Amino acid sequence: MDQELAEDLVAANRILAAHGVIDAYGHVSIRSPRDPKRFYLARNIAPEMVQVEDLLEYGLDGEPVDGARKPDSVSERYIHSEVYRARPDVIAVVHNHSPSVIPFSVTGVPMRPIFHMAAFVGDGVPTFEIRKVQKGSDLLVRNPRLGAALAKTLGKCPAALMRGHGSVVVGENLQRAVGRSVYLELAARMQMQALALSSKITFMDKAEVKANNPVQDYKRAWPLWRAKALAQAKADRE
Amino acid sequence: MDQELAEDLVAANRILAAHGVIDAYGHVSIRSPRDPKRFYLARNIAPEMVQVEDLLEYGLDGEPVDGARKPDSVSERYIHSEVYRARPDVIAVVHNHSPSVIPFSVTGVPMRPIFHMAAFVGDGVPTFEIRKVQKGSDLLVRNPRLGAALAKTLGKCPAALMRGHGSVVVGENLQRAVGRSVYLELAARMQMQALALSSKITFMDKAEVKANNPVQDYKRAWPLWRAKALAQAKADRE
Amino acid sequence: MDQELAEDLVAANRILAAHGVIDAYGHVSIRSPRDPKRFYLARNIAPEMVQVEDLLEYGLDGEPVDGARKPDSVSERYIHSEVYRARPDVIAVVHNHSPSVIPFSVTGVPMRPIFHMAAFVGDGVPTFEIRKVQKGSDLLVRNPRLGAALAKTLGKCPAALMRGHGSVVVGENLQRAVGRSVYLELAARMQMQALALSSKITFMDKAEVKANNPVQDYKRAWPLWRAKALAQAKADRE
Amino acid sequence: MDQELAEDLVAANRILAAHGVIDAYGHVSIRSPRDPKRFYLARNIAPEMVQVEDLLEYGLDGEPVDGARKPDSVSERYIHSEVYRARPDVIAVVHNHSPSVIPFSVTGVPMRPIFHMAAFVGDGVPTFEIRKVQKGSDLLVRNPRLGAALAKTLGKCPAALMRGHGSVVVGENLQRAVGRSVYLELAARMQMQALALSSKITFMDKAEVKANNPVQDYKRAWPLWRAKALAQAKADRE
Repeated sequence: MDQELAEDLVAANRILAAHGVIDAYGHVSIRSPRDPKRFYLARNIAPEMVQVEDLLEYGLDGEPVDGARKPDSVSERYIHSEVYRARPDVIAVVHNHSPSVIPFSVTGVPMRPIFHMAAFVGDGVPTFEIRKVQKGSDLLVRNPRLGAALAKTLGKCPAALMRGHGSVVVGENLQRAVGRSVYLELAARMQMQALALSSKITFMDKAEVKANNPVQDYKRAWPLWRAKALAQAKADRE
Repeated sequence: MDQELAEDLVAANRILAAHGVIDAYGHVSIRSPRDPKRFYLARNIAPEMVQVEDLLEYGLDGEPVDGARKPDSVSERYIHSEVYRARPDVIAVVHNHSPSVIPFSVTGVPMRPIFHMAAFVGDGVPTFEIRKVQKGSDLLVRNPRLGAALAKTLGKCPAALMRGHGSVVVGENLQRAVGRSVYLELAARMQMQALALSSKITFMDKAEVKANNPVQDYKRAWPLWRAKALAQAKADRE
Repeated sequence: MDQELAEDLVAANRILAAHGVIDAYGHVSIRSPRDPKRFYLARNIAPEMVQVEDLLEYGLDGEPVDGARKPDSVSERYIHSEVYRARPDVIAVVHNHSPSVIPFSVTGVPMRPIFHMAAFVGDGVPTFEIRKVQKGSDLLVRNPRLGAALAKTLGKCPAALMRGHGSVVVGENLQRAVGRSVYLELAARMQMQALALSSKITFMDKAEVKANNPVQDYKRAWPLWRAKALAQAKADRE
Repeated sequence: MDQELAEDLVAANRILAAHGVIDAYGHVSIRSPRDPKRFYLARNIAPEMVQVEDLLEYGLDGEPVDGARKPDSVSERYIHSEVYRARPDVIAVVHNHSPSVIPFSVTGVPMRPIFHMAAFVGDGVPTFEIRKVQKGSDLLVRNPRLGAALAKTLGKCPAALMRGHGSVVVGENLQRAVGRSVYLELAARMQMQALALSSKITFMDKAEVKANNPVQDYKRAWPLWRAKALAQAKADRE
């Protein structure tokens, strides 16, 4: 794995933790630039602790290429493998327990595009109800079948909520998946507050969403976020 | 007391403070692995300051085994002693002023399982109304009688709210009592937000709670939390 | 001025800032133990920057004893002087812009005792409406007349809200005035959340308030808070 | 550019980030004291990273005086250029994504003066609806025409909300534009909370707003904020 890419993925783990988007249980992956049927994901540790040597390579079956380290894998790796399988356009996948999106996931209230930094919400953020696929589950996406069902709910959307659990957020590159995760959390908070103020909200319209989305690559934030994350990763080694 | 266990308990105190779950007045204890009629609890200082040498050993009467240090004990130690007496399955007890659970404790609104990381809420989180046992109290559990009444309200549940005061959270091990405390706070916030969004909420159902609970040992978070807490404990000495 | 007392007051300034209770504009004072007609208050700088040498001595006319430094005084020092004049029992006074109490100050909704750590709310927290004393003011307590009117509204209570402005919190000692300020902010947040959950709230009753108040000296928190504040004060010098 | 002024502007960038008022995408500028048709604005990087050498000089056409560095400019620099053109009294301009003002920007609920530290809200905080000027935009102020329309909405007011986007805040000096930005965020939160408590709110009246505004120069906060920001800027170099 390329060193810069590995550092990008380490940074992504730590950025999401620093923004309160993932707790000790989220994960973020990136598709291999060498083989679209492979992706990289950290082993089963808290994202805030991830270092380059914690990154493992997986196949689209959700199993580590180096089978020996399988017990070390996160149980929900099938979120990643099945989204990569279903969505050739997706290069990065985030799974989080983003606290402000969970209230939306358990009510019928849809997230709508309220904030231009999260205009992608206007492309649809459906909610995955695991109960439709498996009754009495622990809500975790523990196998390829559940991962495929989640990927089906996600469809062509940039993100999907997972009822009572969190969300999955995707991107055509890592920066976008990370940036979308950060701003989805903020947008959820804003929508809750706006709904408390008024039932009449001016959301972004379709044309505005369409105009905004290609612009939002979160490239201005990335160098700041990455530098702080890798400085912390370095300090943690010392 | 075993050094690793002592460090676990020091870490637990500091983890709960770092997560905003306990203020300077909460406490966390662990049952002695050598004698189930004994437990360890820090002396009467802010949890954020606890070091290994601050840990005292108590009997199930709530009195320190080394009687000489009794004046140094927290007044609410009977929360711990009576829960250990009533619940042989319990190995660790947390008492906190978790801010987001207090609004639930003073209204009739029950906490329900909204977030898979706090699925244990589905096993019941009753509210202890001290007024039923003692009128005109200062709300503190200052004696074995009040502790026993609280333990009775707790019953077989993983946690109980204490009206206008906070909560008690228990676990079959220390990690679980700590992790449950952290996620109870988060779940309370989510439930308040979901109720503001809608009166129709999809809570976890009984089967989902049952499937999720054995899984939630908070083991992935623990090494991160413990390492940060003990690094701070070490820095505080210097 | 006694060195320990001076350090207590430096710590108080920094503790309140660290808890988000005062911004750059609040202040905290202590009555002189040598002369009840004198008190100590920092010069006109942000509380987070206060050091021992910034403390000035004032008379009950609100003017610095060393007249030469008068231009350096905070304009609202009459809050302190007039409260000390009207309340011989008061040893410390905090004025803050505590963010969660301000919504109560501008609505008719009274704060009531919801949380045992702020049981003193049950002794009454009236709201000072400056408009009744002076129309068209800038809301600041800029002279002895406004200070006296505020002290009259405060009456025998532990705190008073100031409409659209903040609050004044008093104590029989410095720890209590600081601790009450910290927990008034928390209690305000809890009451807002509880009111959003339900119109039926079980507040502490009179007997519970009476039983709890003598106990709440915030002595367990003080050593932690003081040590952290003074460590920061020392670091700021270096 | 004068070194002290440059450091003021570096500090302003970092102060706003530290207070959560601007994310990686806001910006703050200052009019040149030598030529009122020029202003200084950092190049296109996150405000939290700005150093003195990142500051560029612009003309009122919104283009950098040193044309060679144009690609390095923030796309929304026309917010600044057009406000400076329309408002000779304005010396500093902040554009932010202040999270608590956005819910107001998307509902018809007007911000009103609730808190004396943000009394300027009483001079009017209109909302800019970009859709009235350009349908299907990405909500960004990407050209002089949109900037002029925003400046027209701003009129003589101290701030204007930008629907689904953030706000623009101005001042007769840098401290005031920064201080107003910090307190506008706080005031928005307070107004949301007050509205949740009651429909009857006592806002500051016209006379109170008029009396308060000249006083609010945020001069007491500035030395604290500036010192912390520049200490961080220095640390970032090392």
